[in-house]
Amino acid sequence: MFEIVIVGLGLIGGSVSKALKTGTRHKVRGMDTDESAVLDALSCGAIDDRASLFDIKNADIIYLCTYPDAAVEFVREHVGDLKNGCIVTDTCGVKQSVCSRIEALRKDETFLFVGAHPMAGKEKSGFSESTASLFSGASYIITPGAAPQAAVDTVSELARSMGFGRIILTTPEKHDRLIAFTSQVPHVLACAYVMSPSCAEHQGFSAGSYRDVSRVADINGELWSGLFLENRDELVSELDCLMRNIGRLREAVFKEDKSKLKSLLQEAGDRKRIYV
Amino acid sequence: MFEIVIVGLGLIGGSVSKALKTGTRHKVRGMDTDESAVLDALSCGAIDDRASLFDIKNADIIYLCTYPDAAVEFVREHVGDLKNGCIVTDTCGVKQSVCSRIEALRKDETFLFVGAHPMAGKEKSGFSESTASLFSGASYIITPGAAPQAAVDTVSELARSMGFGRIILTTPEKHDRLIAFTSQVPHVLACAYVMSPSCAEHQGFSAGSYRDVSRVADINGELWSGLFLENRDELVSELDCLMRNIGRLREAVFKEDKSKLKSLLQEAGDRKRIYV
Repeated sequence: MFEIVIVGLGLIGGSVSKALKTGTRHKVRGMDTDESAVLDALSCGAIDDRASLFDIKNADIIYLCTYPDAAVEFVREHVGDLKNGCIVTDTCGVKQSVCSRIEALRKDETFLFVGAHPMAGKEKSGFSESTASLFSGASYIITPGAAPQAAVDTVSELARSMGFGRIILTTPEKHDRLIAFTSQVPHVLACAYVMSPSCAEHQGFSAGSYRDVSRVADINGELWSGLFLENRDELVSELDCLMRNIGRLREAVFKEDKSKLKSLLQEAGDRKRIYV
Repeated sequence: MFEIVIVGLGLIGGSVSKALKTGTRHKVRGMDTDESAVLDALSCGAIDDRASLFDIKNADIIYLCTYPDAAVEFVREHVGDLKNGCIVTDTCGVKQSVCSRIEALRKDETFLFVGAHPMAGKEKSGFSESTASLFSGASYIITPGAAPQAAVDTVSELARSMGFGRIILTTPEKHDRLIAFTSQVPHVLACAYVMSPSCAEHQGFSAGSYRDVSRVADINGELWSGLFLENRDELVSELDCLMRNIGRLREAVFKEDKSKLKSLLQEAGDRKRIYV
């Protein structure tokens, strides 16, 4: 049985706690700067207990479920407290900046670090939104870095116990490049989309397409501005690519070039059918 | 009991037939240039019979469920056949160009025309994708134009019988401006989005955001290139607005201006919460 500490009991940390309590028999303790999240987690049994400094020192596994800067800060503050072989793993949506900073703190210390990104979320945040089933069938991306195989295996097994459908091992670089495309661009898009003056009049004139593109516009600005900036180069590059491609379609419409327009739509349709 | 003719038994025409057969006791006949769609519709009871020229002449209500040009063509071909007081209504996703062309054909003829756009669809097309429940709860937009109130009422009542949740009366101009935003921009976006080279590697790195933005990229190029071009000015204007707003967010990321970025995201979030 592992002694587990969850740092940060928001949407992700709360869901990790609930999923671990549901899917495993490990001891799960939690902490949060927001006392009400801790009390809520205790009262619904999402954690066995509040995590004390003793629990941090005694932890076999620590899940960092905070914003990136706070995750790095937690390690900086507790780097001397962690026991030999303690596995520290995070849940941040950017990997290069977080992993390199935590690796730099690790130096000769004997804790192990396994970077990770559970690919699940919601528009809403906070412990009250967390569920044991949030991760059901989702991808759990691991960037092992310098971690030994045994630590990666432990984190993978716990992810499976939490309901994740597949484990992807990759580098922080590839993660950040693809996440810019799969997650960050849609968030930028949703925000840019609802800024149209027409948005104020959409009701009655909209259906699934509006709903899907605008869904994540109800965004946590503090969290996402940080994630965007920590992945600046990759995100800017994907946005430039997107704007070029919107521009190609826009030009075909503007010039009333139907055969060009059709061939661009055909190309897009083919890509969607191949890559799903 | 009305004598109803459905022209075009694809996704929309098939669903109109099935919904009318399910929700009313009217006589529903259908026709399509694709013989197999007619046979499928007959064999599953989506239509009572194949529509003959006699049925067109005898029709109380005709639903045009084809591409815009074919809808106008049908009216041009049969303008002398339609009986006094026959209600012709369409289902096209653009209204100004379709309604003005059909109105021009109507001149002194005695059929009535009620422009309409059922706000429901799917990524897939064809009769085999049609369902009686496609319209459940959706908006039915009517652009009455010169039609008498009684004809608008009849079309509205039939829409309610098909399961539509609300009837919106508006002008072709307002319809086309808002549809450019709510439906056409998301289709352009989805196509532009999947054209990123990163799309080929998304699997395992994507979740709800990728799925939602890319959903309609599996597009019918013939249909949508026509719809885009028939609404060229409104669509270009909305795309320019979108690219300007993506550009503002991109600039804030590029310049690492966190406070600007946060305030843009905050503004977007506020708009999404207000306009839903």
